[in-house]
Amino acid sequence: MTSVDVPAREGRGVRVAAGQRFRVVDVEGGQVADTFAFRADDVGEYHSAEHTRAYVSRLFPRPGEPFVTNRRRPILWLESDDSPGVHDMLCAACDPERYTGLGVEGWHASCQENLRRAMAELGFDRVDVPQPINLFMNIPVRAGGELGWEPAPTRAGDSVTLRAETDCVVVVSACPQDIVPINNGNPTPIAIELL
Amino acid sequence: MTSVDVPAREGRGVRVAAGQRFRVVDVEGGQVADTFAFRADDVGEYHSAEHTRAYVSRLFPRPGEPFVTNRRRPILWLESDDSPGVHDMLCAACDPERYTGLGVEGWHASCQENLRRAMAELGFDRVDVPQPINLFMNIPVRAGGELGWEPAPTRAGDSVTLRAETDCVVVVSACPQDIVPINNGNPTPIAIELL
Repeated sequence: MTSVDVPAREGRGVRVAAGQRFRVVDVEGGQVADTFAFRADDVGEYHSAEHTRAYVSRLFPRPGEPFVTNRRRPILWLESDDSPGVHDMLCAACDPERYTGLGVEGWHASCQENLRRAMAELGFDRVDVPQPINLFMNIPVRAGGELGWEPAPTRAGDSVTLRAETDCVVVVSACPQDIVPINNGNPTPIAIELL
Repeated sequence: MTSVDVPAREGRGVRVAAGQRFRVVDVEGGQVADTFAFRADDVGEYHSAEHTRAYVSRLFPRPGEPFVTNRRRPILWLESDDSPGVHDMLCAACDPERYTGLGVEGWHASCQENLRRAMAELGFDRVDVPQPINLFMNIPVRAGGELGWEPAPTRAGDSVTLRAETDCVVVVSACPQDIVPINNGNPTPIAIELL
């Protein structure tokens, strides 16, 4: 088994073959993993949250259900969930504008920059920034549609196992958000285990 | 006042100046209006549902709140809502793949095609297809995150009034969906009133 360490506040990309399974592990617990998937043969086709919600008629797929692309074709399957099962697919990746809006002055790491750097390292210099699959992220939908921003409830070693439908490029960003409490105020690493 | 008719199953685009208000009217009632907004000076910046949800911490803005772009800048403001207040911002625009998946053989009108045609008529030949603001669309979020596909509850003449933050191009598609019941099985026209 190959394991790729995603250091705290950084991102890493891996190529995953059609049919291959991989596990996204919250190494220390309480950490959000922004996860992106692009078709290897056309990175203009990628996982799309708004198409997946319509496809599965749910805010987030259940184990056994797919994540689909902007062409409504499965790209990943949620095989199993060994975590509290709390994930988000409503919120954009954090980006420089997000941190400016939260009062940060100067540079702050972001999932958007982590995605772009990881894709560039794999040879893809220009990619769209899709809405991520925010594994372990705790955004409750309250009465009247209000969203909460709550700490990730995961414990060390919790994981989600996914299977690729087609050859794809997967990027995981260990979210550097340390202003709102989604990472318990302490961004920590993630691991990608290729099974 | 200029009024632009959007025939049933079709789309129309209008230029809206910074500060200008416009009303989207459900002419006959029970009809979904897929609404898109692009900055006139850079159509690569456009309304983004996933950024708006994070910005307002809600599934859909309330009157007085903005819709923001993929750069987290306000582009439209929800001024007032003279409808039952039921709108969706979870689901992708319908597209050829959606209708194929629903069992339709051959061509079917779609909000994606309506958007592209309306933008091309205004001189924008290549644009992204953002997730729309689905005015009057009734997608309840049920227990466990399950989504419903319910008929639009609007009556004839119900409307939403929006104000542009910046010069922008707005496209409204009178959604041609007639397989799932969101348009009460009978797609009808929309009107855009420039105030």
